[in-house]
Amino acid sequence: MADGKLTHFNEQGRARMVDVTDKDVTARAAVAETIVRMRPETLEAIRSGRVGKGDVLAVAQVAGIMAAKRTAEWIPMCHPLPLTGIDIQFREAGNDRLIIEATVKTTGKTGVEMEALTAVSAAALTVYDMCKAMQKDMEIGPTRLLRKTGGKSGDYARPSEQA
Amino acid sequence: MADGKLTHFNEQGRARMVDVTDKDVTARAAVAETIVRMRPETLEAIRSGRVGKGDVLAVAQVAGIMAAKRTAEWIPMCHPLPLTGIDIQFREAGNDRLIIEATVKTTGKTGVEMEALTAVSAAALTVYDMCKAMQKDMEIGPTRLLRKTGGKSGDYARPSEQA
Amino acid sequence: MADGKLTHFNEQGRARMVDVTDKDVTARAAVAETIVRMRPETLEAIRSGRVGKGDVLAVAQVAGIMAAKRTAEWIPMCHPLPLTGIDIQFREAGNDRLIIEATVKTTGKTGVEMEALTAVSAAALTVYDMCKAMQKDMEIGPTRLLRKTGGKSGDYARPSEQA
Amino acid sequence: MADGKLTHFNEQGRARMVDVTDKDVTARAAVAETIVRMRPETLEAIRSGRVGKGDVLAVAQVAGIMAAKRTAEWIPMCHPLPLTGIDIQFREAGNDRLIIEATVKTTGKTGVEMEALTAVSAAALTVYDMCKAMQKDMEIGPTRLLRKTGGKSGDYARPSEQA
Amino acid sequence: MADGKLTHFNEQGRARMVDVTDKDVTARAAVAETIVRMRPETLEAIRSGRVGKGDVLAVAQVAGIMAAKRTAEWIPMCHPLPLTGIDIQFREAGNDRLIIEATVKTTGKTGVEMEALTAVSAAALTVYDMCKAMQKDMEIGPTRLLRKTGGKSGDYARPSEQA
Amino acid sequence: MADGKLTHFNEQGRARMVDVTDKDVTARAAVAETIVRMRPETLEAIRSGRVGKGDVLAVAQVAGIMAAKRTAEWIPMCHPLPLTGIDIQFREAGNDRLIIEATVKTTGKTGVEMEALTAVSAAALTVYDMCKAMQKDMEIGPTRLLRKTGGKSGDYARPSEQA
Repeated sequence: MADGKLTHFNEQGRARMVDVTDKDVTARAAVAETIVRMRPETLEAIRSGRVGKGDVLAVAQVAGIMAAKRTAEWIPMCHPLPLTGIDIQFREAGNDRLIIEATVKTTGKTGVEMEALTAVSAAALTVYDMCKAMQKDMEIGPTRLLRKTGGKSGDYARPSEQA
Repeated sequence: MADGKLTHFNEQGRARMVDVTDKDVTARAAVAETIVRMRPETLEAIRSGRVGKGDVLAVAQVAGIMAAKRTAEWIPMCHPLPLTGIDIQFREAGNDRLIIEATVKTTGKTGVEMEALTAVSAAALTVYDMCKAMQKDMEIGPTRLLRKTGGKSGDYARPSEQA
Repeated sequence: MADGKLTHFNEQGRARMVDVTDKDVTARAAVAETIVRMRPETLEAIRSGRVGKGDVLAVAQVAGIMAAKRTAEWIPMCHPLPLTGIDIQFREAGNDRLIIEATVKTTGKTGVEMEALTAVSAAALTVYDMCKAMQKDMEIGPTRLLRKTGGKSGDYARPSEQA
Repeated sequence: MADGKLTHFNEQGRARMVDVTDKDVTARAAVAETIVRMRPETLEAIRSGRVGKGDVLAVAQVAGIMAAKRTAEWIPMCHPLPLTGIDIQFREAGNDRLIIEATVKTTGKTGVEMEALTAVSAAALTVYDMCKAMQKDMEIGPTRLLRKTGGKSGDYARPSEQA
Repeated sequence: MADGKLTHFNEQGRARMVDVTDKDVTARAAVAETIVRMRPETLEAIRSGRVGKGDVLAVAQVAGIMAAKRTAEWIPMCHPLPLTGIDIQFREAGNDRLIIEATVKTTGKTGVEMEALTAVSAAALTVYDMCKAMQKDMEIGPTRLLRKTGGKSGDYARPSEQA
Repeated sequence: MADGKLTHFNEQGRARMVDVTDKDVTARAAVAETIVRMRPETLEAIRSGRVGKGDVLAVAQVAGIMAAKRTAEWIPMCHPLPLTGIDIQFREAGNDRLIIEATVKTTGKTGVEMEALTAVSAAALTVYDMCKAMQKDMEIGPTRLLRKTGGKSGDYARPSEQA
């Protein structure tokens, strides 16, 4: 994959799950992030809801973790991997943005970028679902990979992450 | 839900799947959209790949449709619904953005916003997965609901969609 | 089923999913309960954890709801049903028992007893999982149906529930 | 986990799937048990049905095995594990109790207690499902871990199992 | 669909799940069949195993029923349907063929041909799996639809079935 | 398994998932094939559809790959395996037969015959689904294992494959 070619296609030009049989089993990790943009009162409802009436983020957390474990069921060419750790963190940016960050780990033959991206996507969709009665025009994204480690192709970090 | 309160919590302040037993079964539809931002050469590879070597979007299309059908497995408080139609469309914006739009329909007691949002999310993640050997800093989003119809709460369209 | 025969077998003596095509679609509900028996300090850790460090029951709640929606995947002869409401409640009995109660509703052709029983079972197993580092000899049960309503066979309540 | 603390929570007090990346891959096994309490005539129907009309326990066996393989889909913080062996045994106690025992094995980084407990739970729920036309007040439990082997934390056996 | 065109593609030439929102909800049924061809001693082992050591067909029956319920997860453009009845029958033809027939019913907007075909496929694969230590060159097929009823397009029966 | 006995049953004569804990982890591969028999005009529609209106085989490809990854959910006694490669090829035989061949690889303790057979079965069923509006009497099969490599029991090839 070093030459940057699309390698998900066989000689018939159809999709395949890339053969990683000969790759080494190594410890790998990936961190991804997304942002849910909403009105300040929606974010306030999520925040205060935690104490008083219910915890949107606790549900989103579980959703993200469970989705990550089943990433290979959602992403057709993604290899199934036995994940060894998943953590999801929430933080606010300003008064109208909820940042969701997921760290996923495995010991396996391929990386876990997709698992981390899937975790934050499912968590963000769950936040949307639980708050959509209040606000339907929330926006999710940008969803992006922050960094990854392990594997032969070496580590990766987004430019803004490399400082 | 007319008063905009968060209704996913029971009297113990814990999450529940909202009781919709008494709601009417009506035809419902929702349209959602997301955007995958990438380098022009990545978009060009997707585009040309269709003719020559393989069709990233065909795989993404299937991923989105299959994910939509299983939305209730991803989103914890989402009601399971027997979907009656799913369509996903792709178009380019400029030379560096791929727009993914999903239309989902059902005849049921709740809307299909989450199914449409899940469809575009899974399709976008699949595009990322199949192109990540070329480019790791693609970004997904904003993911958003464009419009919905059907159900007692009435139709909805994003402001920019109402013209 | 009025005569109490086992009706899950065909004329070859093998299991089948009973034909309910001709049954009426009606509103149905079921309530089930289980108990997790543990040491007082384990129950105390769950209780205090909610405020300080984490909420075992929030995770168990989500687990129960998600499992209920997929009951027909776990119980081979169980009909798939589009559930219209799921709620799970927790309460303590004495200082060493956690009671979990689930209410499940549908509008369909068969009852939702299995969905309610599955919900409390998954929630209880999740409590076990999250506390097993503290105590491995917790016990789950008795798991039982408290009552059901709707459907041709009439309502049911456990004797102790009928007062 | 040696100090018996709840370790399923991150520094935000939210649930995570515990990081086991650095744990050794070892052979592990767990045995769990549950009991289904029923009227003697129900147990008799199960027993005789095997010869004449159908085999409730054959279906329950398959249900338990299939559920064990998917434990990580039921139990949110449970690690996915490639199971290497699952066996389920049934025996009667007196004329009104069916005992279900599951043995689960893996070669992995975490134990299989949850898989064994899930197997007996799914098997018991299946027995309930297939006999509920005869008897609705059957009770499931106590569901409990009998013993486990493998892993750094050492072997475990319930006190009554240690003789 | 009366004109026999492929209707699973949208105007972009990509796959979609056909919109059946406006179709009537009617009772529908389908019957499909497959054949597993094996050596006489393999068939004999299956047959005698039922009495003595284990029941291959009981497991295959459960596999077929469970797979039918999840057909829409296997077949990308297949609509999810709440099945109302599933039955699977086995019979022998000569001393070397096992015939598997599945009848599936629903009350819905689309037919259940795929569910019946999926049921017999999963049952046949299970027979193969459980007997492959004895014989690896078993063959499955022809797998085919025998008849279907219900829905606007009218009933269908294979020519050989119409007598 | 060297003596060819059915080993999927425990001492109670009930099914179990065979214990492979002590087997070596080795690279394994399997190739399976099936054939979809159809009218020449149906095959022509699939072929031409690729260029003009839609690509049945692209959808079938994805279906086969996704089904292979989840084989252990379909086949009750099948061990879950982290697949390391899946490829599906299509070719025509005469003017009325579509041949589907799947190659599946893993590094694990059991073979991947079932995964390869499941892949071609799901792909063939998808072809049927997408063309059934044109032709309902298509036939699938024979579905069979062509060859396997790896594992203690040695390599296998169908007689016709051994030349």
